[in-house]
Amino acid sequence: MEEFKINSIAKVFNQRVEPIDDNWGSIISEIKLKEHIPTEAIDGIEQFSHLEIFYIFHLAYQKNNPILGSGHPRENPAYPKTGIFAQRKKDRPNFIGSTIVKLIRKENRSLFVQYLDAINETPIIDIKPVVKEFLPNEETKQPNWMGDLMKNYYTKLAD
Amino acid sequence: MEEFKINSIAKVFNQRVEPIDDNWGSIISEIKLKEHIPTEAIDGIEQFSHLEIFYIFHLAYQKNNPILGSGHPRENPAYPKTGIFAQRKKDRPNFIGSTIVKLIRKENRSLFVQYLDAINETPIIDIKPVVKEFLPNEETKQPNWMGDLMKNYYTKLAD
Repeated sequence: MEEFKINSIAKVFNQRVEPIDDNWGSIISEIKLKEHIPTEAIDGIEQFSHLEIFYIFHLAYQKNNPILGSGHPRENPAYPKTGIFAQRKKDRPNFIGSTIVKLIRKENRSLFVQYLDAINETPIIDIKPVVKEFLPNEETKQPNWMGDLMKNYYTKLAD
Repeated sequence: MEEFKINSIAKVFNQRVEPIDDNWGSIISEIKLKEHIPTEAIDGIEQFSHLEIFYIFHLAYQKNNPILGSGHPRENPAYPKTGIFAQRKKDRPNFIGSTIVKLIRKENRSLFVQYLDAINETPIIDIKPVVKEFLPNEETKQPNWMGDLMKNYYTKLAD
């Protein structure tokens, strides 16, 4: 088994202090660089409209009880038992999360973003710009349960 | 500085043994689960057309000389000096790569995929299904140099 050491490069600050599945649409997150990362690391990032944020589900990492095989998405028996790598659940090997966000603005050593589904104090391990040529160049296919699971994910709390 | 331990969960097998920037379009990669991961981990994955593959740029990880600030993409002075988090270069903090691929087929404990830009023996640290609701829901914006840099990325060697 190959092991790699990963260090957080930034941290999330937002109003969501507990892990809740849905209604991320209202949340604007600040991603603030850690002290060992120079400000130049985000030079020119404002030329991209969207970023991909890589983070550690740190509460799940601390609990360290990942699903290695399969399980029901959201523990909902209405959704079929599915392999951990065929869903995006947080209790997964390595506890890595990744989300495409919209960059709202840059301010000194912070990025303010919308659509990040990570709670307050989440450690960030990488930031990459979204590049058009890396997005799927055709319609993507997914099972129906996934659309059902996602139906309130990005709605706003007041909706 | 927060440190996390990450273990590889699969490995890449393909015909590209050296890191070359372009012409990934010809390459079909096998992603084979490591022994400690049960086969159930990929149950149902064939219901998704596209996957996101997370890996470690292992040669760069071994060299351990990341860019922390900014630099020219591909060391090409024609491209403006840009922060490491505003480009997808491999010599980056934590050396994490991530690419959306097309799932060609599943075979026992292996996934065969197209558009993975990782060389033979690359360690995989996560696999997630591409979910429509997580893709940008509007046109993305990027600087012109990025389109130029990407122009031969996914062309085939024979093109």
